[in-house]
Amino acid sequence: MIMHSLTPHLRNSHYCFLPKFRNFSFSFPISHKFNFINPNFPQNSKTYPTFIVRNSSGSITAKPSSELRKKRGNDSDSCSDSDQKLGDLRELFSKPNINIDAYIIPSQDAHQSEFIAECYMRRAYISGFTGSAGTAVVTKDKAALWTDGRYFLQAEQQLSSSWILMRAGNMGVPTTSEWLNSVLAPGCRIGIDPFLFSSDAAEELKEAISKRKHELVYLYDCNLVDEVWKASRPKAPNKPIRLHDLKYAGLDVSSKLSSLRSELAGAGASAIVISMLDEVAWLLNLRGKDIPHSPVMYAYLIVEIDGAKLFTDNSKVTSEVMEYLKNAGIDLCPYESILSEIESLAERGAGLWLDTSSINAAIVNTYRSACDKYFSGRGYQNEIERSNGESSGRYAVYRSSPVSLAKAVKNDAELEGMRNCHLRDGAALAQFWSWLEEEILKDVVLTEVQVADKLLEFRSMQDGFLDTSFDTISGSGANGAIIHYKPEPGTCSIVHADKLFLLDSGAQYHDGTTDVTRTVHFGEPSSRQRECFTRVLQGHIALDQAVFPENTPGFVLDAFARSALWKIGLDYRHGTGHGVGAALNVHEGPQSISFRFGNMTPLLKGMVVSNEPGYYEDHSFGIRIENLLFVKELDTPNNYGGHAYLGFEKLTFVPIQEIRQG
Amino acid sequence: MIMHSLTPHLRNSHYCFLPKFRNFSFSFPISHKFNFINPNFPQNSKTYPTFIVRNSSGSITAKPSSELRKKRGNDSDSCSDSDQKLGDLRELFSKPNINIDAYIIPSQDAHQSEFIAECYMRRAYISGFTGSAGTAVVTKDKAALWTDGRYFLQAEQQLSSSWILMRAGNMGVPTTSEWLNSVLAPGCRIGIDPFLFSSDAAEELKEAISKRKHELVYLYDCNLVDEVWKASRPKAPNKPIRLHDLKYAGLDVSSKLSSLRSELAGAGASAIVISMLDEVAWLLNLRGKDIPHSPVMYAYLIVEIDGAKLFTDNSKVTSEVMEYLKNAGIDLCPYESILSEIESLAERGAGLWLDTSSINAAIVNTYRSACDKYFSGRGYQNEIERSNGESSGRYAVYRSSPVSLAKAVKNDAELEGMRNCHLRDGAALAQFWSWLEEEILKDVVLTEVQVADKLLEFRSMQDGFLDTSFDTISGSGANGAIIHYKPEPGTCSIVHADKLFLLDSGAQYHDGTTDVTRTVHFGEPSSRQRECFTRVLQGHIALDQAVFPENTPGFVLDAFARSALWKIGLDYRHGTGHGVGAALNVHEGPQSISFRFGNMTPLLKGMVVSNEPGYYEDHSFGIRIENLLFVKELDTPNNYGGHAYLGFEKLTFVPIQEIRQG
Repeated sequence: MIMHSLTPHLRNSHYCFLPKFRNFSFSFPISHKFNFINPNFPQNSKTYPTFIVRNSSGSITAKPSSELRKKRGNDSDSCSDSDQKLGDLRELFSKPNINIDAYIIPSQDAHQSEFIAECYMRRAYISGFTGSAGTAVVTKDKAALWTDGRYFLQAEQQLSSSWILMRAGNMGVPTTSEWLNSVLAPGCRIGIDPFLFSSDAAEELKEAISKRKHELVYLYDCNLVDEVWKASRPKAPNKPIRLHDLKYAGLDVSSKLSSLRSELAGAGASAIVISMLDEVAWLLNLRGKDIPHSPVMYAYLIVEIDGAKLFTDNSKVTSEVMEYLKNAGIDLCPYESILSEIESLAERGAGLWLDTSSINAAIVNTYRSACDKYFSGRGYQNEIERSNGESSGRYAVYRSSPVSLAKAVKNDAELEGMRNCHLRDGAALAQFWSWLEEEILKDVVLTEVQVADKLLEFRSMQDGFLDTSFDTISGSGANGAIIHYKPEPGTCSIVHADKLFLLDSGAQYHDGTTDVTRTVHFGEPSSRQRECFTRVLQGHIALDQAVFPENTPGFVLDAFARSALWKIGLDYRHGTGHGVGAALNVHEGPQSISFRFGNMTPLLKGMVVSNEPGYYEDHSFGIRIENLLFVKELDTPNNYGGHAYLGFEKLTFVPIQEIRQG
Repeated sequence: MIMHSLTPHLRNSHYCFLPKFRNFSFSFPISHKFNFINPNFPQNSKTYPTFIVRNSSGSITAKPSSELRKKRGNDSDSCSDSDQKLGDLRELFSKPNINIDAYIIPSQDAHQSEFIAECYMRRAYISGFTGSAGTAVVTKDKAALWTDGRYFLQAEQQLSSSWILMRAGNMGVPTTSEWLNSVLAPGCRIGIDPFLFSSDAAEELKEAISKRKHELVYLYDCNLVDEVWKASRPKAPNKPIRLHDLKYAGLDVSSKLSSLRSELAGAGASAIVISMLDEVAWLLNLRGKDIPHSPVMYAYLIVEIDGAKLFTDNSKVTSEVMEYLKNAGIDLCPYESILSEIESLAERGAGLWLDTSSINAAIVNTYRSACDKYFSGRGYQNEIERSNGESSGRYAVYRSSPVSLAKAVKNDAELEGMRNCHLRDGAALAQFWSWLEEEILKDVVLTEVQVADKLLEFRSMQDGFLDTSFDTISGSGANGAIIHYKPEPGTCSIVHADKLFLLDSGAQYHDGTTDVTRTVHFGEPSSRQRECFTRVLQGHIALDQAVFPENTPGFVLDAFARSALWKIGLDYRHGTGHGVGAALNVHEGPQSISFRFGNMTPLLKGMVVSNEPGYYEDHSFGIRIENLLFVKELDTPNNYGGHAYLGFEKLTFVPIQEIRQG
């Protein structure tokens, strides 16, 4: 209770540190740093003669402006026919095999991914609201959309009058379940697509609506929005899967599988379902192109003691990958067959390791029901009961995925790749900043989008470049204070010489992933800006230089980064550091450096974290200084308590501007 | 789980921050800073011609050495007859109304007090082990005593061969319940005195032993150790209760009761049981002399919406206090009648607010059984169920005591008293340090005990002095590294001019409570000592100067106090700050500044905390620098997020020695 009231102002934080993100809080959408919507395109061709167009995988292509306009036109059409879509959706409610009174449409895909493929953007399709965080709820006569403070304005503009905008976090605004409990007569049936809710989130929802005796109905067979979407729905991505070179991965798939199997055996489990896409990619040393910014493919993986099955679309699997999987003892199965395999596992008496914070409700419930069917409910027994002298097998083990931690602790090859790609990334950034300074000093007018695209151009010339690791945050002046700012051509600002300019960007390379923020001024900053910048930098340096005993959770260090700001009554409403994958997701868990004190994961040698304190003055300016660091053991003169003492080494090498004294 | 493995080395910490202390961890005795055993007396009358003898209330009397020797003789006798006591105890096991196979004897009294009256030191009596932390378990053929690393040596010396010493925290040492599960045949009856276990601790124990189908038997009617102890058992303390002047309390009893009653009503409860002795004293503006160091009396208090009852020994209540209670609408009841009143409350349908982490199992179980009896078990319903639209009354509300937080946030009068007594205390300490320096430089040989007693002499000359607030920790050289060190006459060291000397002491005054530590060197400290002292002081200053937003839990600041030590691989194995009562217990919750990250209580304006980082080099030296501070709102140039920013103001005014450069 106290935790709750402690940081109400911090709940809109823009960082989707995975531990929180994976515990999808249904009634209060977890926001994140980057929009997942596809980039729109420059409107004013005069100031921006050459269009650089990124497709969903981030590679650069050039398209004529006519095609771009056509695409934009389609977008606005799809916004105006919102009522038609709602009508079509409600018609499905009364179909005999469905028979529901309300339907909930979250933002998620089936894997709790931060970035998702376009075909899974169902909430955006049905509501017209394209922000990254939001939940739509449709009853027979009402439709409501929940989003957080970052998106109130955008939602107001995008939602038709059929929609009620629920400003989550504002006083008196109900949660989705509170709202459903108030607008529906008792005893209604509320439908969800069980693939789109983590098991934990679904259980929480079920509990909340049971107060009015509503039933949560799992509609396994079809997603109702997809039924409405029909032919216009984008195809599921099916880009070819590629091998991730052992020289970057450091550990071959058989070693990784063997460690995982030891963990399974140790926990008394005989199989595990991996559903987080970066975990699947990391474990198999495979990479995909299904999602912008994240080099992963849509897939589930089941690892048993004596075998493994990859569930993915056949068409993505080249003959090289097919051969590779065969050699690794991994069978290929259709993506859609995951539930039947779960059922079969239960029938065979497998003890399944389930991370219910990330595994979707469809999988967990299928396993539980099947255990009920075959073994009279013993599958429900929890780990505590199990460990109490019962023999192994046939019971679920409910624990965090062991792959999450294994992936977070980088091996030498992964660190080497991270170091190398950061040097190349730093070179691209040096070229970029030098170019930008020159242009600005020549009084060339450049928009935030043009600048971001130029950076992409420099990065794409570097060896091994694949994609941006998130949509570049390029914010001049007041835009720098919008933490999730995404400049759009046509509406974005120009980069003013007399304002602070905040640039947060990153890239995916074959050998690693980068994420770096710099804030610069091309003219004379105010004394206020100098003071704030200095204190942010002091915090950045305090964290950078921190030394701490092994087993220290990240949140212990969070205050170091804030202390200099606190001294004059300033702060920032986001965490200080998140994990970063090695040639994988730019945001990963389980560690974080944050005021989210519940995350007890210690910072371990080999983990990569960002160090990104900031300060934001609404309608005026934003400051953030971000490096990536890795955790290393230090050679301290003492080792009190026999403990190793840890610190950080920088991965990022990009100059920090010295803001000149006025 | 991670929390557990994170800080195994920290579990022997010496600070009994109340939030942890109150959640008495049965299998692993929570240690605390100060022994509760009565002081022994100097042996060598040559070096210590005048005996200063403190009685249990801390006032000073002089006794002839013959009487002292007699007392010591008795002590050793009582150690040798341990087997006889065990035999007598086991004989009681088979009595028809008892019929148990094992009996557990914890250190606690019925109120989870840190310091307890001698008549309640049952574990010390039965086992002969007098350390502050320990649990004795006696079966029909075995006897075992659990204590932690601080007391292994002492326990080895004090336990007879009939006892197995369980070195808690060492590899492979079972918990009490694990041991009982292993040595008893399944289905045994394990007896406890339910007054001596918090309800939470008893439930945990019950759960743990149920694995072998043992039954936990609550023996309400008698404490078996008391039965063995018989006539030689010290009488229950019955010192007169006195009024705590309103000019120190700041708020009269009717205002306090009225606030409490509002909280009860708000929570839907109609009555509350207060069992923590400092909470009873604070709420009623009364003080007692039942326990050394703590100005409290043994009592329970029940506050109902329309009345209140104080359960205490009539003989402690002077006519003045009787009149006072009558005016405040508080009825006086015998201490022993608490359970019958609880039963009567349940019968009358009262909804009882119970803090099960501090209220003993006897009370909680009596209430539950009575609710079962009168209302078919509805008393079991927990708060969540209750709040769900049910009408109030007749159900327990399980929450932390609201008095704990109210007491921790000092009002202006309390802060004024704390400020004033700290100035007088500082004057006494200044006299003392000046005296000590002079004596040492004159080469006078002084023992740690003599020095502590001289300090007591200076303090006792100050207005309003009542008692020490804990046994003075006076440690020269290596003794300073023993965090719980209590010098004993005869065995204690002299205060060497060429060693670091650590002195941690405090006092109870009519208007407040003090706690201060200084570490000094009368000669030339080594460069190692200088470095460590400097870093401890840097940590002390970092915390002293910290600024933080309102609603920050104390643990967020803990790392500030350690950072300078961490930089060279050093640390200390205790928390950095605890709450302190105003003319009450020297240790109070709910706030703390500690690596115990679970304590989410924010530091609130008006709270008093200690700031006491340290460093301890085993067998060599110890350093600790401690001030008391209170939390105040700062006038920062900004108030980001609309929040108040808080900091500390010093209560303690005692010079910190500048350790000279060599």
